[in-house]
Amino acid sequence: MTFKRKKISVIGSGFTGATTAFLLAQKELGDVVIVDIPQNENPTKGKALDMAEAGPVQGFDTRLTGTSDYADTKDSDLVIITAGIARKPGMSRDDLVQTNQKVMKSVTAEIVKHSPDTTILVLTNPVDAMTYTVFKESGFPKERVIGQSGVLDTARFRTFVAEELDLSVKDVTGFVLGGHGDDMVPLVRYSYAGGIPLETLISKERLDAIVDRTRKGGAEIVNLLGNGSAYYAPAAALVEMAEAILKDQRRVLPSIAYLEGEYGMNGIYLGVPTVLGSKGIEQIIELELTEDEKTELQKSADSVKKVMEILV
Amino acid sequence: MTFKRKKISVIGSGFTGATTAFLLAQKELGDVVIVDIPQNENPTKGKALDMAEAGPVQGFDTRLTGTSDYADTKDSDLVIITAGIARKPGMSRDDLVQTNQKVMKSVTAEIVKHSPDTTILVLTNPVDAMTYTVFKESGFPKERVIGQSGVLDTARFRTFVAEELDLSVKDVTGFVLGGHGDDMVPLVRYSYAGGIPLETLISKERLDAIVDRTRKGGAEIVNLLGNGSAYYAPAAALVEMAEAILKDQRRVLPSIAYLEGEYGMNGIYLGVPTVLGSKGIEQIIELELTEDEKTELQKSADSVKKVMEILV
Amino acid sequence: MTFKRKKISVIGSGFTGATTAFLLAQKELGDVVIVDIPQNENPTKGKALDMAEAGPVQGFDTRLTGTSDYADTKDSDLVIITAGIARKPGMSRDDLVQTNQKVMKSVTAEIVKHSPDTTILVLTNPVDAMTYTVFKESGFPKERVIGQSGVLDTARFRTFVAEELDLSVKDVTGFVLGGHGDDMVPLVRYSYAGGIPLETLISKERLDAIVDRTRKGGAEIVNLLGNGSAYYAPAAALVEMAEAILKDQRRVLPSIAYLEGEYGMNGIYLGVPTVLGSKGIEQIIELELTEDEKTELQKSADSVKKVMEILV
Amino acid sequence: MTFKRKKISVIGSGFTGATTAFLLAQKELGDVVIVDIPQNENPTKGKALDMAEAGPVQGFDTRLTGTSDYADTKDSDLVIITAGIARKPGMSRDDLVQTNQKVMKSVTAEIVKHSPDTTILVLTNPVDAMTYTVFKESGFPKERVIGQSGVLDTARFRTFVAEELDLSVKDVTGFVLGGHGDDMVPLVRYSYAGGIPLETLISKERLDAIVDRTRKGGAEIVNLLGNGSAYYAPAAALVEMAEAILKDQRRVLPSIAYLEGEYGMNGIYLGVPTVLGSKGIEQIIELELTEDEKTELQKSADSVKKVMEILV
Repeated sequence: MTFKRKKISVIGSGFTGATTAFLLAQKELGDVVIVDIPQNENPTKGKALDMAEAGPVQGFDTRLTGTSDYADTKDSDLVIITAGIARKPGMSRDDLVQTNQKVMKSVTAEIVKHSPDTTILVLTNPVDAMTYTVFKESGFPKERVIGQSGVLDTARFRTFVAEELDLSVKDVTGFVLGGHGDDMVPLVRYSYAGGIPLETLISKERLDAIVDRTRKGGAEIVNLLGNGSAYYAPAAALVEMAEAILKDQRRVLPSIAYLEGEYGMNGIYLGVPTVLGSKGIEQIIELELTEDEKTELQKSADSVKKVMEILV
Repeated sequence: MTFKRKKISVIGSGFTGATTAFLLAQKELGDVVIVDIPQNENPTKGKALDMAEAGPVQGFDTRLTGTSDYADTKDSDLVIITAGIARKPGMSRDDLVQTNQKVMKSVTAEIVKHSPDTTILVLTNPVDAMTYTVFKESGFPKERVIGQSGVLDTARFRTFVAEELDLSVKDVTGFVLGGHGDDMVPLVRYSYAGGIPLETLISKERLDAIVDRTRKGGAEIVNLLGNGSAYYAPAAALVEMAEAILKDQRRVLPSIAYLEGEYGMNGIYLGVPTVLGSKGIEQIIELELTEDEKTELQKSADSVKKVMEILV
Repeated sequence: MTFKRKKISVIGSGFTGATTAFLLAQKELGDVVIVDIPQNENPTKGKALDMAEAGPVQGFDTRLTGTSDYADTKDSDLVIITAGIARKPGMSRDDLVQTNQKVMKSVTAEIVKHSPDTTILVLTNPVDAMTYTVFKESGFPKERVIGQSGVLDTARFRTFVAEELDLSVKDVTGFVLGGHGDDMVPLVRYSYAGGIPLETLISKERLDAIVDRTRKGGAEIVNLLGNGSAYYAPAAALVEMAEAILKDQRRVLPSIAYLEGEYGMNGIYLGVPTVLGSKGIEQIIELELTEDEKTELQKSADSVKKVMEILV
Repeated sequence: MTFKRKKISVIGSGFTGATTAFLLAQKELGDVVIVDIPQNENPTKGKALDMAEAGPVQGFDTRLTGTSDYADTKDSDLVIITAGIARKPGMSRDDLVQTNQKVMKSVTAEIVKHSPDTTILVLTNPVDAMTYTVFKESGFPKERVIGQSGVLDTARFRTFVAEELDLSVKDVTGFVLGGHGDDMVPLVRYSYAGGIPLETLISKERLDAIVDRTRKGGAEIVNLLGNGSAYYAPAAALVEMAEAILKDQRRVLPSIAYLEGEYGMNGIYLGVPTVLGSKGIEQIIELELTEDEKTELQKSADSVKKVMEILV
C-alpha cells in the first residue's frame, strides 16, 4: 500500500487563486497545481516558484506547479475555481454573467476531461449562478459541485462582532443562509459569542449595523483598495472548505448547494448549512425558519434566479 | 503582572509588506500595524481588514491595522521595513539607491520617534546599503538594525536542491555569506541534505548550476512575473527572523550585520551567520574561510561599498 | 527593548502536571518549570528532560526544568497548580479536602513568595474549594486566582455530541455553569452544532444521556483506567486557559471565578462564563437563567459550600 | 473519488504507545487505533477516550479507539509496535530478548492478518533484533518493516548541543549510525549548528562528553525516573517517521533498515540514513566512512548479531 500525495488544482492565478494555493501549501493538504490561461503561464509559474521557495522557511514541503496545461491537473482530488473577470466600470451585469459563464464552461470541460471523479469548489461571481453553470456543464452529481460564500460572509460577521465586543474571534460564530453579499440572509439568532446569543450581548442597533456591514463586506474592501477586491479572507474560506473535504472532517459549514426540495426550493444553487466531508456535500441541514426568514430566503432565491435567467 | 501583546509594525503595504503582515498574523506573534504613505492609506486599510477577516477561518486573533500615521506604531517591539521603489526600466542604479535612501531616512526618523527602543529589520534593496542607511539614521546600536538576505537566498537554494534530489526541503540546508543575489557567496561545503554534505550527493556541474540559479533567484521570479518581483519567499524570510527575535529563540540565521572587524571587514553591513534573539543580533559567528571564499567575500564587500558610495 | 521569554510554572509532576507541561512546551508559550516535592525531584527532572528531548523532533525550543526548589519559579508569568492527592479507597471526603487544602496552602505560600504578581490556575480537586483556598492563602486579587472545570466538562460534552452526530468536534460547542462533574449545570440551550441548537438535532432522551455521561465523565475514565484518572483532556483544558491569559486573547471560556454578587452568589468560587486575558478573569458574563437553571445553580453552589465548610 | 481517512494502529498502550497515539492525533495524520492485550482493554479504552476528549480543546478531530481486538486494525495504513516488556531487575538479557521476540511474533501475525499491505514501525527493545523478528515473521518486503532509534538518538544529541551552545534546537542537527544507545556510532563530523560543523564550535572534551551522554541518554532518563523509561522523545521520534511515510515526504531520517550489502553488511537490521516516503524506506544512503567509523560500525553490527543469536 502506498500513499499518493493528494492533488489540488486551483484554476486562476489572480490574487485569490494565488493566495488559496499558498494557504493550501502551508497546510500540506496535497500538492498544488495552479492553472491559468496561456498568456499568464509565466506569471503563474513565477508565483508557484516564489511560493515553493517560501516552503523551507515556513516548514512545508508541498510541491507547487504553475501551468496553462490542464493535463497537469490530471486526477486532481479537488479542484477550486477562482477564474473569471470582475465587473468593470460600464460593464452591465448581463455582460459579467455571460462572460464568466463562458469561462466556467471552458474551465469545467477541461477539469472534467482530466479529473472525472473530482470535487469542484467554485468562488467565481456571481457565485450561485456560476456554481450552477459548473454543475450543469460537468454532469457531476450535485454533492461534488459546491460554491463558497457563507464561510466568507460569516468570517466577516465574526470579525466585526469580535471587534465590537473586544473578544477573540475564536469564540464568535455567525450563521447565514441564501446568496452572497447583498442577498445574504443572516440568522443572528444562531450567532454567538462564547455560546451566548449575540442578541443578549449587543444592542439591536449595533447588531443591525454589523449585519449591514457584513452584507456590504465585499464592497467595503473594494472601496478601500480602489483597485481590485478582497482575496485573503476569500482564499481562507476556500481552504477551510477544501480541508473539510480532503481530510473527510464532516465539518458543519455553509455551502452553496444544489437544492431539490430543501427549504422549499428546487433546481437552484443557494447557501445553506451543510456537512462537508470526503464525498463533498454529505448532508444539507434543514432548519425551521421564521416567517420573516422564509420571506428573506425567498427574496434571495428570486435574486439568484434572476441571474440564472441571464445564463445562455 | 499583565502581558501586553507585542506590537510589530510593517512599513510598506506592497506585496511583500502585506504578505509579511499576513504571515506574522497567522503566527500570532503580536498585533500588526501596516504603514504606508497617505496616498495609499485606504488600500492599506483594505488589506489589513481583508487579512483580519481571514482570522476567524485561519484560527488567529491577531489585530491588524492599516494606517499612514506613524503614531500608530508607537512602542513597536519590532519594525520591518519593506518600503521603497523597485528599479524601473531606464532608471540608473544611482537613482534607485538615492531614492530608496531618501525613503529609508524619512521612514527611520518616524520609527525612531515613536519606538526609540525597537529593533529594525530591513528588506529594501539594495539591502546592504539600505540597512546601513537605517543604522546611521536611527542612531541605534548595531545589533538592533538588521538586514535580510541570507534566509531568502538559502531558502531558494534549499528549494532547488530538494527538487534536484527529490527530497523534502525540511532536510536540506544551505549556507551563504556576503551580499544579496549576485554578490552572494555560497558556502556549499556547509550545505547538506539530511546532514550529508551536498558535494557527496550532487555532481559539481549540477551544484554549480544550482548555485548559479540561486544567485539569480530574484531575477528568475522577476522575469517570470513580467511585472513585479518575488514576495512570498521574501516575506517568509522576514517572518522567520522576526519570530527568532520576538520569541527570543537564539536561532542561527544569516543576517546582514554591521561588521567591526569580523571577517576582516569594517564599517560595512554584510551577510554573515548570526545568532538572533530578543536583543537582535546577539552574536556574529566567525568562520575560517578558504582563500577562495575570502576572495569572494572581499569582492562581495567591494560591491556593497560601491553602492554605499552612491549614498548621499 | 528586549523580550524575556515568559515563564510558566506547573506545580505537580503527576500525569496531569506533566502532560500540561508538555502541551505548554509544544505551543512555545514560554519556558516551563515543573515543581514537585523533594522526594519526586529526580522523576520530575527525568520527565522534563524527556520532554525537552522531544523538542528537536516536534519543532519546539521551549526550555523545560524539573525541580523541587520553588526559587526556580521566580517571577513566573503564570502558575498552574495540579498538585494534590486523589481520593483513595476508604478515605473520607473530609480527609481528602483537608489534605489537599494543606497542600494548596503550602504550595501557595511558595508561589506567592517567588512570584507575587503572577496569576494562578487551579486544577486540584475538589476544585471549587481548592481555588478558594488558594485565593485566601495568596491574598491575590480575585481575578488572578482561577479554577478550571468548565473547559474540560464542555470538551467532554462536545466529544460525545460530535460522536452522536458523526460531525467534527470543531463545530460543536457546549456550555456549563456551576461546579465540576456531578454539580455541573449544563446549559444545553446554549450548546450547538454548527451554530444550530442541539435541541433541534438530538432527541431529548439522547441529549439527557449525553449530559449525564458528561457529568460522570471523570468517573467514566477512572473506571476504565482502573488505576488513576484522566489527564490528557484536563491538561488540554488548562493549556487553553493558560494560552488565553499569556497571549491576552480575551477568550470567552468558563472559569471557576470568585463571585461577589454575580448570579446572586457571594463569597464563593463557582463555574461561570468569563473573559480570560492578560489580567486573568477580565469579566464575568452574567446570563439570564430560567427558574430551573437557577435552582440547579443554587444546588451546585450549596454543594460547593458544603465542601467549603470542611476547610479548616 | 472519496478520501478515506488514513488509519494508524499503535500496538501497546503503555506510556510510549499512548503518547505516540496522542501525538499522531494532534497532527490529524489519520484515525488512531490503540491495541493492547485483553487484560488491558479497559485502560486502553480509557486512554483513547481521554485523548479524544482533549480534541475539542486542542483542535483535532481525530477518532481514537482503544481495543484488544486486532480486527479493529483492519486495513491500517501504518502500524507502530511499542508493545513488549522492559528489562526487570534480575532478568537476563536472553529472557528479555526471547520474551519480546514472542510478543513480536504474536503481534506481527495479527497485524499481517488484518493489514497485509501495511508498513510497520518498530520501537520495542532490543530494537534491531525486534525489527528483524517482525520482518521475518511478517514476510513483508524489507522496505515496509522499519525500526526506530536514530531519530531519538539524534534528538537527544541535538538537545544537549543546543543547551551547550545556548542555541535553539531548531538549528542543531545530529547524525548517527549503527545500533541504539550504547551501540550508537555518532558521526559528529556530520553534525552542525546552523550548518557549522560542531567540531569548530565545541571543544573535543565537551563534544565527547555530549556523545557519551547521548549514548547513555536512555539510561539517564531511567535513572532519573526511578521507575520506567523515557516516552515523550521516543513517541515524538516515531511520529516524525510516521508522518514522513503517511505524507509521502521523502524525508532523510535515520532508520533501522535491513541491509543487503550496504555498508558491507548482510542480513542484519542496523541504523543507517534513509529516505522515508509512502513506500517506507525508499532509499538507503551509503556514506564513505573513515576507518575508525567502519570499525565502530562493525562493532555495533557484532553487538546486534549477538542479540540475534539469542532469538529462538
